[in-house]
Amino acid sequence: MEQKLIKEWLGKNKGNAVKLLRKLIQERSIQGRESSAQAVVVEACRELGLEIDIWEPDIKEISAHENFVSTRDNFEDSPNVVAIWRGTGGGHSIILNGHIDVVPEGDMLQWDCDPYEGKVQDGKVYGRGSTDMKGGNVSLLLAINALKSIGVKLKGDVIFQSVIEEESGGAGTLAAILRGYSADAVLIPEPTNMKIFPKQQGSMWFRLKVKGKSAHGGTRYEGVSALEKSVVVMDKIKELETLRNNRVNDPLYKGIPIPLPINLGKIEGGNWPSSVPDLVVLEGRIGVGPEETLEDVKQELAASLRSLKEVDTWFETHPVELEWFGAQWVPGTVEVTHPFVKVIDHAYKEVVGKSAIVEASPWGTDGGLFTQLCNIPTVVFGPGTTEVAHYPNEYISIDQMMNAAEVIALVLMDWCGISEEA
Amino acid sequence: MEQKLIKEWLGKNKGNAVKLLRKLIQERSIQGRESSAQAVVVEACRELGLEIDIWEPDIKEISAHENFVSTRDNFEDSPNVVAIWRGTGGGHSIILNGHIDVVPEGDMLQWDCDPYEGKVQDGKVYGRGSTDMKGGNVSLLLAINALKSIGVKLKGDVIFQSVIEEESGGAGTLAAILRGYSADAVLIPEPTNMKIFPKQQGSMWFRLKVKGKSAHGGTRYEGVSALEKSVVVMDKIKELETLRNNRVNDPLYKGIPIPLPINLGKIEGGNWPSSVPDLVVLEGRIGVGPEETLEDVKQELAASLRSLKEVDTWFETHPVELEWFGAQWVPGTVEVTHPFVKVIDHAYKEVVGKSAIVEASPWGTDGGLFTQLCNIPTVVFGPGTTEVAHYPNEYISIDQMMNAAEVIALVLMDWCGISEEA
Repeated sequence: MEQKLIKEWLGKNKGNAVKLLRKLIQERSIQGRESSAQAVVVEACRELGLEIDIWEPDIKEISAHENFVSTRDNFEDSPNVVAIWRGTGGGHSIILNGHIDVVPEGDMLQWDCDPYEGKVQDGKVYGRGSTDMKGGNVSLLLAINALKSIGVKLKGDVIFQSVIEEESGGAGTLAAILRGYSADAVLIPEPTNMKIFPKQQGSMWFRLKVKGKSAHGGTRYEGVSALEKSVVVMDKIKELETLRNNRVNDPLYKGIPIPLPINLGKIEGGNWPSSVPDLVVLEGRIGVGPEETLEDVKQELAASLRSLKEVDTWFETHPVELEWFGAQWVPGTVEVTHPFVKVIDHAYKEVVGKSAIVEASPWGTDGGLFTQLCNIPTVVFGPGTTEVAHYPNEYISIDQMMNAAEVIALVLMDWCGISEEA
Repeated sequence: MEQKLIKEWLGKNKGNAVKLLRKLIQERSIQGRESSAQAVVVEACRELGLEIDIWEPDIKEISAHENFVSTRDNFEDSPNVVAIWRGTGGGHSIILNGHIDVVPEGDMLQWDCDPYEGKVQDGKVYGRGSTDMKGGNVSLLLAINALKSIGVKLKGDVIFQSVIEEESGGAGTLAAILRGYSADAVLIPEPTNMKIFPKQQGSMWFRLKVKGKSAHGGTRYEGVSALEKSVVVMDKIKELETLRNNRVNDPLYKGIPIPLPINLGKIEGGNWPSSVPDLVVLEGRIGVGPEETLEDVKQELAASLRSLKEVDTWFETHPVELEWFGAQWVPGTVEVTHPFVKVIDHAYKEVVGKSAIVEASPWGTDGGLFTQLCNIPTVVFGPGTTEVAHYPNEYISIDQMMNAAEVIALVLMDWCGISEEA
């Protein structure tokens, strides 16, 4: 009964949904510039009649927390937004969490359109953040809107969170947790392509300093190229990645080419074409398995780098320096048999007509913070595909975004319970 | 007779020589900041009673020349200095050419002393530019000073040149040539460790843009790492270097591990630890054999990069972009049997007691411009060792600098001829 009304309402409001998503994309909410996109979110929440809480996290307060990581020293102009749809009581509460920050657009030449225009074409909306994860955020707001519009009241509280800093380590969600927000379950609509991710990979950023010995390029054999040594380091990192992934036997990772990737994302070295470079700095990201601890992985990478001296004696006297910096996402896991997973699976089946694929996520989300710090069962499920996240020409399928909204609306009714109050 | 007086005079003036060298080192004459070091040179030339010409090269005038290369768009505050010791007539003239610019000091942490203090220890003077090539410049000024001090007059003109921009492609020497300075021979006291280099390697700078495809680091297998592709490019460059050096059979290159090196001096790529880098930029220097043309070498590198597609089909659709930029040194060569080479060899034997080693230079100098543009026989011979040029803790042996001065004084007498005028 309600599902039919929800579907109808969503069908009629597709245009409004696209309009909201485009407005969100048009605000370039890279790290430190999230406030104008949050203003769009606040306006949408106000129209829904939700209780709104807007605050800039206090760096002094949250930086003391062991899970605090951020490259920032204040959160001025970077507010978090939480909007509550208060239930009538007696049901399960739920947090619907999405991040508002996006990664930079990268090489503009590889974009076929303006990354911040929100171009609509062939049933897709294009732009930075469309899939990661403004589309998912729109699904959340649509689900609430649909239920309210058809007159459903829920027993449990629905706590919608639009957070900053997810792409840089989760300080936004950490701030929301420290502000006291909690619930019986968390749903995060990151782009899983409508798969259910009960396990989420954690990850950490690291920096490697590879040393060489400078010399004139014309007698380069008298120096030691930090760039050539970096290739040896890269081989070692690849070897460690293989070793770590060979250990993964969780069926949820079946079909994922590299469950726990180590990505080298940035390199910089040398300062003169005619000189042998004496320093190369590499920055990367290492995936942390759902059952691993950050500390274990830190130690494993350090040990791997120490073993470089067995490959090349240069590293005996010039060990690679390892530094952990910037972002960090703790892994998260909830049992596949948990009732909340079942609720999502059931709702998916109602909407799509078949069972959802259940997998482990190939990347970190803020979900780890909820499971590890608050012990709240957290599932990642949302529209959009990881293949286009962080890419040029990022897009989201409008139909998938609408389907996700429908699934989430059913999840809310099932999990929070429908109130019979007038 | 004169040699004995020269030796005596140099013995007495070692302290003054070190003082002059330290003053030159203390002026940090990196590209664009040469004027204060040139002021020290001018003062020394004035004391010697030479005819002095100081001018800032006119970029409009010289930039039209096909051999002009520079990263600069004007030469304000970067004067060239030429100082002439006019001969009495009838002898060979000579240009004594040295550059005043130095490469940057690089990683300060690798220096055991201030690179611009001019520390004196154990018979050596330390500092950026000590060996490359302020020490050689001091040898030139000492040779002139010694001859004048003991009352020698020469028949041929001695044209001392203290030029800018050698480290960035020779615009200073080019400007001196275009101003009309010419002679019957050129001696450049770059740090050959007292070897005679009748052949000089040329070199050019190049920039490579290696492309990838961006992706989220957690699903890095969906992207193509420009950094991993750069390793393939580096292998290809190494292969080309081997190929080019296997062709070198000039006996003057005997004993040099890599006669024509290709050096990759700078790398930069990617912009986010959690993203697969889609662009890596490499900058390097390729050596050009004394008998090669710049154009031949340009084409050979381009062809080598084109052949990458046979190694990896990625390069078929994403060819590496090659750009020639910045510095460029034309190679130079003079026959080993040329009388000027014999004169230097003879003088060396007089001073050191044995024959000099004759080799081809492993790096480019401004000498190529003199041989190729003006057809002037040019030999590189000077104090200091290439092993420390462009390095941290660069130094020069004071005794070697004094010996070089003695050899050069004898060369001047032999080549230019001693005047019998009163």
